[in-house]
Amino acid sequence: MTKPMLRALAGEAVWPPPVWLMRQAGRYLPEYRAIRAKAGDFIALCTTPDLAIEVTMQPIRRYGMDAAILFSDILMLPWALGHGLRFAEGEGPLLPPLRDAAALAALDRERLVERISPILATVRGVRAELDRTMPGQTALIGFAGAPFTVACYMVEGHGSKEFGAVRGMAYRDPALFSALMDLLTETTIVYLAAQIEAGAEAVMLFDSWAGVLPPALFRAHVIEPARRITAALRERFPHVPVIGFPRLGGLSIAAYARATGVQGLGLDTTVDPVLASRLVPAPVALQGNLDPLALEAGGAAMRSATAEILAAMRGRPFVFNLGHGIVPPTPPEHVGELVELVRAA
Amino acid sequence: MTKPMLRALAGEAVWPPPVWLMRQAGRYLPEYRAIRAKAGDFIALCTTPDLAIEVTMQPIRRYGMDAAILFSDILMLPWALGHGLRFAEGEGPLLPPLRDAAALAALDRERLVERISPILATVRGVRAELDRTMPGQTALIGFAGAPFTVACYMVEGHGSKEFGAVRGMAYRDPALFSALMDLLTETTIVYLAAQIEAGAEAVMLFDSWAGVLPPALFRAHVIEPARRITAALRERFPHVPVIGFPRLGGLSIAAYARATGVQGLGLDTTVDPVLASRLVPAPVALQGNLDPLALEAGGAAMRSATAEILAAMRGRPFVFNLGHGIVPPTPPEHVGELVELVRAA
Repeated sequence: MTKPMLRALAGEAVWPPPVWLMRQAGRYLPEYRAIRAKAGDFIALCTTPDLAIEVTMQPIRRYGMDAAILFSDILMLPWALGHGLRFAEGEGPLLPPLRDAAALAALDRERLVERISPILATVRGVRAELDRTMPGQTALIGFAGAPFTVACYMVEGHGSKEFGAVRGMAYRDPALFSALMDLLTETTIVYLAAQIEAGAEAVMLFDSWAGVLPPALFRAHVIEPARRITAALRERFPHVPVIGFPRLGGLSIAAYARATGVQGLGLDTTVDPVLASRLVPAPVALQGNLDPLALEAGGAAMRSATAEILAAMRGRPFVFNLGHGIVPPTPPEHVGELVELVRAA
Repeated sequence: MTKPMLRALAGEAVWPPPVWLMRQAGRYLPEYRAIRAKAGDFIALCTTPDLAIEVTMQPIRRYGMDAAILFSDILMLPWALGHGLRFAEGEGPLLPPLRDAAALAALDRERLVERISPILATVRGVRAELDRTMPGQTALIGFAGAPFTVACYMVEGHGSKEFGAVRGMAYRDPALFSALMDLLTETTIVYLAAQIEAGAEAVMLFDSWAGVLPPALFRAHVIEPARRITAALRERFPHVPVIGFPRLGGLSIAAYARATGVQGLGLDTTVDPVLASRLVPAPVALQGNLDPLALEAGGAAMRSATAEILAAMRGRPFVFNLGHGIVPPTPPEHVGELVELVRAA
């Protein structure tokens, strides 16, 4: 029996829809915080298979989600390329800002396969655990940051509201920026292909900062890399669907869905599900998009926002999710209630 | 002779299009920095008519812009309601977070008219200066923050990427949040009407954080207040156009244009001008949307991005602008070159 998540991504209007939530493994869960404390450093947690398998499985055990997503971080790719990365408490990721050709040349593709081996061990371990405990039910999603979003952090050196440095590089030194984007696109293909070979049944490309780009740069640095990655993976793994998530892509999400060839399109919180459903027809599966703050608030706000999304998506391929990750203060019982709501649809 | 900016906002396809730039009075200009240093505090600059008139006029003298916009801040409305406000160096605005009914009740509408009097004196002074030096050419735009964006800062207490506290209040205490939104909507009408009576020839409503809202909240707290404000102003001042700017409104901007009745729609940097032009037909004037970082970069990047926008907008009512404010490191000569480019269209 094909898992509901994979049926939806194959273009079937599965109902009630499969459900999983971005950051379902995370700080809102006490059992996550316990493991996190034990691991010490966040990168250690991502690269210690026993611990990463455990936190990936925690929300599956609690809620029986239709998908597990590899516990990792979008910046593990630059980390695997030898680009410095650390997570400062309360500050988010910090990297040495990449601003010139020398810094680009210092990235070491040769390291990639070796450095990602603990991540692939996690994929294998989660898949085995799912095959054992959730057969026919819970699909395993691998993921990567999309090249533009990864470039945002590498060039800026940290999080930002506007990522001005990266746009500045795209305008002032388009050759350097394109070389960086090409390198990230090619290594993302290697990284996701390795996750699929290790057992991922679908992959998701997180372009969290796609929404800071004007349309010409969006076409060049969001749509085109996603098209290349999707095409390369489909050629090697024709049955493994790709979910694109151009967060805050606004008016450009329909063009993204058309031009990239993705099988699934993640919708951020701001997208009107009725409009999205009209603009992005089947067989593309839509995935989203409850406001994580409605989930945190719970109660009537959560129920009415959920009902609005379900009503818009009934009858088309769809995967219920949030429009952005779960926020840490979310009460775990709200997540349980939400999953029940969706399954009663 | 009607000013080009007002003809465009009346639905005429003026060509070459009128041009002005958000934050055209600001830190990128050495003459602005000189006045800013003299004024000391930012609020003092906004409430000292001689200085505010001077900085409003500086870009008009340099570049002969088609519009001057009152030099002020979107948070001068809560300031005028007696809500504390200060600008901490490098941190942006700081306000006491408004989280309960007592804080809402403490807002003092009675103060409003008296507290905005220096701002209105600035409007009168700029209008007199424009009538004297730029007759028939440069229109004066008054403005306010849209109620949702003003509420973002009042509830959160400071800037934020996500404005989680304000969305949390909208979900958890919709009655309190609606009462705050009603008060801000009503006082914004008073504030903008007073600017029009003092000489503003158009008004703009800046909803900088509209893009953090899911669709149901966007309809309730972005579209509906803009509709009420536009309707109230049009009833009293039928010839004064309203420009709405629901920044990062994404797929919802067409619904905003239709439902609010605005005469002008500001487009943020991310909007594809070809799509926007299709979704928002004349007589609504579109305004935007060059990336401020393309202006900062200058050269070929600025020229090609500008040409793309002009090509999309030719033949329809349009006002050339940026998609967000000028950034402080922008070389002033790039602004001069941009204005020449637009006028050679």
